[in-house]
Amino acid sequence: MTEPKFDRLRERLAEVTDLSKAATLLFWDQRVMMPPGGSAARAEALSTLSTLAQERFVAADIGRLLEDLRGIEEGSEYESFESSLIRVTRRDYEKATRVPPDLVGEMSKAAALALSAWGPAKEESNFEALRPHLETHLELKHRYVECFDPPDETYDVLLDNYEPDMKTAEVREIFEQLKQQLVPLVQEIGEAGEVDDSFLRQSFDPESQREFALAILGRFGYTDDEWRLDQTSHPFQATPGYADIRLTSNFRPNDLTSLFATMHEFGHGLYERGVDSTLARTPLGSGVSLGLHESQSRTWENLVGRSRSFWRFFYPRLQESFSDQLRSVDEEQFYRAINRVHPSLIRIDADEVTYNMHIILRFELEQELIEGRLAVKDLPAAWNERMAAYLDVEVPNDAQGVLQDMHWAGGGFGYFPTYSLGNVISLQIWERVNEELGDLDQGFERGEFDSLREWLQEHLYVLGRKFTPQETIERVTGSRIDAKPYVRYLREKLAPQPA
Amino acid sequence: MTEPKFDRLRERLAEVTDLSKAATLLFWDQRVMMPPGGSAARAEALSTLSTLAQERFVAADIGRLLEDLRGIEEGSEYESFESSLIRVTRRDYEKATRVPPDLVGEMSKAAALALSAWGPAKEESNFEALRPHLETHLELKHRYVECFDPPDETYDVLLDNYEPDMKTAEVREIFEQLKQQLVPLVQEIGEAGEVDDSFLRQSFDPESQREFALAILGRFGYTDDEWRLDQTSHPFQATPGYADIRLTSNFRPNDLTSLFATMHEFGHGLYERGVDSTLARTPLGSGVSLGLHESQSRTWENLVGRSRSFWRFFYPRLQESFSDQLRSVDEEQFYRAINRVHPSLIRIDADEVTYNMHIILRFELEQELIEGRLAVKDLPAAWNERMAAYLDVEVPNDAQGVLQDMHWAGGGFGYFPTYSLGNVISLQIWERVNEELGDLDQGFERGEFDSLREWLQEHLYVLGRKFTPQETIERVTGSRIDAKPYVRYLREKLAPQPA
Repeated sequence: MTEPKFDRLRERLAEVTDLSKAATLLFWDQRVMMPPGGSAARAEALSTLSTLAQERFVAADIGRLLEDLRGIEEGSEYESFESSLIRVTRRDYEKATRVPPDLVGEMSKAAALALSAWGPAKEESNFEALRPHLETHLELKHRYVECFDPPDETYDVLLDNYEPDMKTAEVREIFEQLKQQLVPLVQEIGEAGEVDDSFLRQSFDPESQREFALAILGRFGYTDDEWRLDQTSHPFQATPGYADIRLTSNFRPNDLTSLFATMHEFGHGLYERGVDSTLARTPLGSGVSLGLHESQSRTWENLVGRSRSFWRFFYPRLQESFSDQLRSVDEEQFYRAINRVHPSLIRIDADEVTYNMHIILRFELEQELIEGRLAVKDLPAAWNERMAAYLDVEVPNDAQGVLQDMHWAGGGFGYFPTYSLGNVISLQIWERVNEELGDLDQGFERGEFDSLREWLQEHLYVLGRKFTPQETIERVTGSRIDAKPYVRYLREKLAPQPA
Repeated sequence: MTEPKFDRLRERLAEVTDLSKAATLLFWDQRVMMPPGGSAARAEALSTLSTLAQERFVAADIGRLLEDLRGIEEGSEYESFESSLIRVTRRDYEKATRVPPDLVGEMSKAAALALSAWGPAKEESNFEALRPHLETHLELKHRYVECFDPPDETYDVLLDNYEPDMKTAEVREIFEQLKQQLVPLVQEIGEAGEVDDSFLRQSFDPESQREFALAILGRFGYTDDEWRLDQTSHPFQATPGYADIRLTSNFRPNDLTSLFATMHEFGHGLYERGVDSTLARTPLGSGVSLGLHESQSRTWENLVGRSRSFWRFFYPRLQESFSDQLRSVDEEQFYRAINRVHPSLIRIDADEVTYNMHIILRFELEQELIEGRLAVKDLPAAWNERMAAYLDVEVPNDAQGVLQDMHWAGGGFGYFPTYSLGNVISLQIWERVNEELGDLDQGFERGEFDSLREWLQEHLYVLGRKFTPQETIERVTGSRIDAKPYVRYLREKLAPQPA
C-alpha cells in the first residue's frame, strides 16, 4: 500500500492511538502507583489527553481522508487491513462527529460529579444524594440519543456504545431465555441443600496467593517480559501499549477467591495481547466489544479456572501452598465450594448462575428508566422488588442494593448487559474449540493450556476490531449469538445430580 | 486577572504542560515499571507526545497572544505572575521557533541512533563505533547554532539550553578558579595518605538500605502521600505532576553509597515539590536550570548528607541497622570514609573535590570540539592526556574513559558544566542560609532539617522559573555566581589538617 492518503490516515490515527494509550498509562498509574497527592494534577492531565485525542480524531481532515479513501476501501478485500481500517474508522468517525463537543463535555463533567457523589452516597446508603445526578444523566442521555437517527428503541443507542450493532430486541430475547432457564435452576439448586465454602475464607497470606496466581498464569501464557501483576482494591486490566499488559488483583488476607479475579483479568489481557501486531497504533488494535472481551475473561476464570480438570492439576499444589488451611479439604469439596450457587445481594460476588439475574435486573431497569416508564425516585423500590422476585433475596439497604455499582453514577447506561452477553458468547466459542481440538480436559489435568490459548489467539484475538462483534462471533463460531450452549453448560455443570 | 487573552494563553500552556508531564510519566514508567516488551510502543508514544507538545507550543496563535500581551507584561510588576509568565514564555517561544522542525527531528533521530550505538561501543570499548555519530552531532550543532544571532562564542548557544543566559566566558572564569585551587588540593590530600573506606563495600541487604534511606528522607520531608522511591539501575528523579514526586535509586547488595545517591535525588525532588502551586501547569512550574537544580541535589547529598552533624544523629542508627558490618567502625572512621578524596577514572563515582576536575575536562574538550580545534578522531587521546594532567590518572581503555557517559551520545553538549556550577551555587546558598538561620549543625545533630528545608522552600524553590537563573541566584544570595564559597568549603572540610 503506497497510497499517500492512506498513509496519512494511518499517521493521524497512530497519533490518536498514542494519546489514548498514554491516557491508559496515566489511568493505570493513578490506581496502582501514584502517590495520592498527585490526584488533582492527574485529573487535569487525563482530561487534556482525552480531549486532545477526541479533538484530533473528529478533525475535518480525517473526514476528508475517509471520503477520499472510499475507492481504496471498495477496491480491497473486505477482510484486508486497508478496507477494515477505513470501514471501522468511518463508523467510529461518523458516530463521534454526531455528538457536539459541548454535550461530550457536559456528559463527562456530569459523570465526574456523580462519581464523586456516589462514594459518600453508598457509604451512607443515601440514594437521595445520588438521585439528582442520575436524573441529570438521563436528561443528557436523551440529548445524546437525539444526535442519531431514530432507533428502533431508545436503548439501542446506549447499547451501541458498548456492544456495537447489537439491538436491544436481540439482547431481550437472549435474556428472556436465560431468565426462563435460570430462575428454576436457582430454585432447584437451593432445594438441594447448602454447600460449605467457609474454608475459602480462612487466613491466606496475600503474598503466597499472588505467587500461586502467578504460577497459574505462567502456565496460561503470562511472561515477565510482557506482563505485570499488581495489587489494587478494584481489579482491572490495562494495556498501555502493544505487548505491555498490566493485570491488577486484590489479594486479601482472608479470602482465596481473588485467584479467580486474577484469571478473569488475565483473560482480558490475553485478548489484548493476541491482537495482531500489524493492528497496533490503529483503531483496530484492541478487543472488539465489551461482550467479546468478557467472553474471554469468563473463559479463563470459569470455563478453565473453575473446571474439575484444572483443579485436578492445581489442587494438590494449592494444598501444598496452604497446607494448614486445606489439609482436611479434598479436591471434590474444594471444587464444589468454588462452584457454589447461592443467591446473594452483590453482583460482583455472585456465582456463575445468579450473576446473570443481577444483570437482567439492571438491563430491565435501565430500559424502563430511559423510556420514562420508571422514575429515578422509584428506582430503589423497583430494584428491591425485582431482587425478591428473581433471587428471593431481601435487600436490607440501598448500599447493598441499587447503590452497589459505580456504573450508573459514571453514566454507563447500556454497559451491564455486556457482562451476560459475554457469558453467553464464551460458551459458543468454547463449544467450537472443543469441536476442533477435542478433549481439552486431558491437557488441563497436566497443567497444559497452550492449545486452547493458541486456538483462541489464531481464531479470535488476532482479529482485533477488524470486524463487528457479530461478524466476529460468526467468523469464530459459525453462528449468530445464541444462549443455548451457555444454558446447557450451566445445567450440566451445576444442576443438582439425581440422587 | 480577567484579560481573556491571558486566560487563553494559560489554557494553551496548560495543555502543553500536561502533554509534557504525561511524557514524564511515560519516561518514568519505562524505566521503573514497564515490562520490556512494551519498549517499541513506548518509544512511539513518547515521540508522539513530545512532538505534539512542541507543535502546540510553537503554534502561531501562541506567538500572537504573546505579542498582544506585551501591554499586560509591561503594565504589571516584574515579579508578578502575569509579567513573569508572559516574559518567560516569550523567551522559550522565541528560542523554540528559531529552530526549524526538520532540524529538531534530525537532532532527535541522531540522538536516538547514537544512544543505540553508545551501549555496545562502551561494552566493547570501541570508540570508532561512536565516532561517526559524534561527528554528525557536531555538524547538527553547527546548524543549530546558525539558527541564532551570532554569539560571543559558539559554545554559548549550547550552554544556553541547560543554563539559560549563562555565558561560556563566565563559566570559564569560574572553572579556572576551581582548577587553580583544586589541582593543588588534590595533590595535598594525596600526599597525606590513604583513607580506608573498604567497609562501605561489604554485604548490605538492599531492602534494609532502602528502609534506612526512607528513614533519612522522612526526616528531610518525604511523605508517602506525595512521594515514591523505586529501584532502578540509573537513579533519577521525575515529577509527573504537581505533588507527585518520584525518586529512584539503585540499592546494591555490596555498596552502602546509594544512600547518598538517594539524598541527591531527594534534593531534586524537593526543589520540584517546592515550586509554588500557582505555577503548576505553566512553563514556570519547575526548577529554573540544571545548575540550580544540581545545587539542591548536592546540598542534600553533600552539605547535609556528608556532614559530621548529620552522621552524629544517624550513625548510631546506621550501626544498629547494620551491626555486623559496622560494629568495629567508629563515627570518625565512617565520616572520613564517606568523604574520602581519591582521583579515579569514573565521574559518577568521584568525590566532592575530584568530581569538578572531571567536569572541567569535559567542558574544555566540548569547546575545542565545537570550535574545530579538536577533531573527533583525536578525542580519546586528548581525554587521556588531560586525565593524566588533572588527576594523575592513567586511562586503561575508552570504556572507562571517553565512552563512560551517555551525554555526548545523546547530543548533550553544554550539559556537563551545570554539574560543577551546581556545586558552586550550592555553597553560595548554603552560606546565605547559615547567615540567616545561624548554626544548622545543632538541628542536624538532633535529626532536624525542617528549618533548612523551609528556608530553601521560601527563598528558592517557590520561585520556579519566574526569574532567570542569574536573577534567581541574586535574589536568593544577594550576589552573582561566585566560586569562592565553594572552594573555601572544600578546603575547610577536606584539606589535610596540619599534624
